[in-house]
Amino acid sequence: MDILEKLTWRYATKKFNPEKKLAEAQLTRILKATSLSASSYGLQPYKIIVVTDPVVREQLKAVSWNQGQITDASHLVIFARYDNLQEQHVEQYISNIASTRQMERAQLSRFEDIVKGTVSRLNSEAAAAWTGKQAYLALGTLLTACAADGIDACPMEGFNAAAYDEILGLKEKNLRTVVLAAIGFRADEDGMQHAKKVRKPLEDFVELV
Amino acid sequence: MDILEKLTWRYATKKFNPEKKLAEAQLTRILKATSLSASSYGLQPYKIIVVTDPVVREQLKAVSWNQGQITDASHLVIFARYDNLQEQHVEQYISNIASTRQMERAQLSRFEDIVKGTVSRLNSEAAAAWTGKQAYLALGTLLTACAADGIDACPMEGFNAAAYDEILGLKEKNLRTVVLAAIGFRADEDGMQHAKKVRKPLEDFVELV
Repeated sequence: MDILEKLTWRYATKKFNPEKKLAEAQLTRILKATSLSASSYGLQPYKIIVVTDPVVREQLKAVSWNQGQITDASHLVIFARYDNLQEQHVEQYISNIASTRQMERAQLSRFEDIVKGTVSRLNSEAAAAWTGKQAYLALGTLLTACAADGIDACPMEGFNAAAYDEILGLKEKNLRTVVLAAIGFRADEDGMQHAKKVRKPLEDFVELV
Repeated sequence: MDILEKLTWRYATKKFNPEKKLAEAQLTRILKATSLSASSYGLQPYKIIVVTDPVVREQLKAVSWNQGQITDASHLVIFARYDNLQEQHVEQYISNIASTRQMERAQLSRFEDIVKGTVSRLNSEAAAAWTGKQAYLALGTLLTACAADGIDACPMEGFNAAAYDEILGLKEKNLRTVVLAAIGFRADEDGMQHAKKVRKPLEDFVELV
């Protein structure tokens, strides 16, 4: 598998084949890949919500400019950030490091203080920007992993985030919708798959110092 | 190449082998992969700055908590967002679509209006958050592409962004530093490569609806 070929094959799929679904194992691979994404301090300050329920997806479509991908894709993947990164979130993470790496929790106290310090210094707006960026990094991982596995995807920002939070009951769970990816398989008739990729020439995109 | 194996191999490299450099072709592949990243509307509202100059890297290290990756990695990759997404930026993009896909510019006028509308409605803070997120998405693409190609990387947020802008003269170019990736090859003695990966269990990370 050549990653450049795979990324060239990828495009923001506008029309999915509604009959063609990811196998369970394919979905699990993509979710595992997403969970392997880098995040600041390794904190993973977001959750992945996978929506298959057709009734919920119709409701979400209505607050997403009626875009067909919301209902037609095999799975709708929602990246939701944690809104309050309470100390508890950090403590669970530190406990997870300790148990995974068989360390004493005390060995991690300096790191724990650093993470808690960073988190506590963020006001709610800065925290939203920071956790949102981590979710976008994970979206980049998901899209690339989908391409590597021959799965189509459409990253989506065109939706009413507050309505998503309402429909999915996210506020009660301290979560807020950040961004979406519809994943599945392209419809034969989606003309966009044949359109030439438009990118800045590398010499404009990159500067060497 | 199995993308899950590659992502498991990846870790935030703390100590690079300063003797081992990416070949020109390896670097070009990573930059191409990054330019193939998805971005909102396809606008690519950021630039990639690749720093190899050792003098500049010493200056940058001094404003990055003296982290060794800044100078020891093969290449330092800086993601810098455009600060003002002037109409000009959108117009260049629309022209690029027209010439790449051999379309009349007029056929794109509706799309052009939509993109200009979105961009003009963002105040400077919202624009910074939006373009910053696109850069993080591209960082996710870069990190995954590096892993796929067996290249080590360390994503980095611990630096003084204003000092980076100053040292690299970015303000005059309408650019602002968002995030970094040091890329190259791990040092044999970097113990972190042997540490078990710490991730939330998939059942906590993912919710099915």
